[in-house]
Amino acid sequence: MSEDTVLLAAVSLLFACQQAYFANLVGKCRIKYKVIPPAVTGSPEFERTLRAQQNCIEFSAIFLIDLWTAGWFCNQELAALFGLLYIYGRHTYFYGYVESAKGRLKGFSVCKTSLILLLVLALTGITNSLFHKYFHLNLLKKLF
Amino acid sequence: MSEDTVLLAAVSLLFACQQAYFANLVGKCRIKYKVIPPAVTGSPEFERTLRAQQNCIEFSAIFLIDLWTAGWFCNQELAALFGLLYIYGRHTYFYGYVESAKGRLKGFSVCKTSLILLLVLALTGITNSLFHKYFHLNLLKKLF
Amino acid sequence: MSEDTVLLAAVSLLFACQQAYFANLVGKCRIKYKVIPPAVTGSPEFERTLRAQQNCIEFSAIFLIDLWTAGWFCNQELAALFGLLYIYGRHTYFYGYVESAKGRLKGFSVCKTSLILLLVLALTGITNSLFHKYFHLNLLKKLF
Repeated sequence: MSEDTVLLAAVSLLFACQQAYFANLVGKCRIKYKVIPPAVTGSPEFERTLRAQQNCIEFSAIFLIDLWTAGWFCNQELAALFGLLYIYGRHTYFYGYVESAKGRLKGFSVCKTSLILLLVLALTGITNSLFHKYFHLNLLKKLF
Repeated sequence: MSEDTVLLAAVSLLFACQQAYFANLVGKCRIKYKVIPPAVTGSPEFERTLRAQQNCIEFSAIFLIDLWTAGWFCNQELAALFGLLYIYGRHTYFYGYVESAKGRLKGFSVCKTSLILLLVLALTGITNSLFHKYFHLNLLKKLF
Repeated sequence: MSEDTVLLAAVSLLFACQQAYFANLVGKCRIKYKVIPPAVTGSPEFERTLRAQQNCIEFSAIFLIDLWTAGWFCNQELAALFGLLYIYGRHTYFYGYVESAKGRLKGFSVCKTSLILLLVLALTGITNSLFHKYFHLNLLKKLF
């Protein structure tokens, strides 16, 4: 069982470390620009860093659901690969956004692409699993 | 294994798509009311839309934990049904909140009801599983 | 299968209840200090309470990934124990932050410690599982 999910777990753990790292950077940015908690406004640099982190958090449930359903029901290796692409996209997004509001766009489109790829895998796998559960048909095996 | 969770995965994926859709609506609302990132304040319409999305995110971990523990340890079909009720509640909540602050209340009570139902399922299933693990008793089988 | 994860599920459910409880306290704080939705600023007491809850949400994906990978791939009992420590840390953090901005620091360091402990477990377990998958080696069994 655990071998069928170890790549998904490894990618998820890398993602968790990235999120913790971003949270840490927001904390450092608070000190640098003297934005004392619980304030969430101040210098534009701080506000961009905070929004960059917040946007990552807003999408974290979407990413994790997509990753695990894609990997569990369709193909673990491909899902892990697209998961790594997402983490790379978030990296680009975060550092781009810290520089300027426009800088977030490139990384965001990488994230969007990887989420769509994961969604396609997930939908394929879940449809196949539903057909197997209710009609005893294995469509993926018939196709390939 | 995967057939025992495919309904939960399907409901989770639908939830992920709903969250992505809400995020997209917030983005469109930014353009419509000219709230340039990283700003999070501006017209009341934008602020309500943003808060509606934020509240959905705040509850996403609670919902996913409730859904999966209820479905995994108690009954997948019932958990999936209550999960769909939650997604319907979030839909009503979001569009109600976009209209007016009071408009969020009806959808929120639907969400609360479905979370409580999932919690009851989850507690039943986990209690049974703990009794089985430590005392080799299957309470649910004895009762039904 | 479900017995291998029942402690993780129980800790996750307790965490979900804690998050719901914090969300409820923010709602009560809104009424007490007359901060009408969708406003997120007002009295310093309300802003601290809101930020305390937001910080819990920001770390919820990190915590859940750490907890489940540690428990699934390494040791369920230890992971559940560190998970309880995290929940205690969040409790201390939240009530400390509500009192004063400085009050959040003690609870936060408890949370950080438990996350690091979970991360060590998770990395150990995943490394072992990867070695087993690709090199058919069970390092943990060889060591203990």
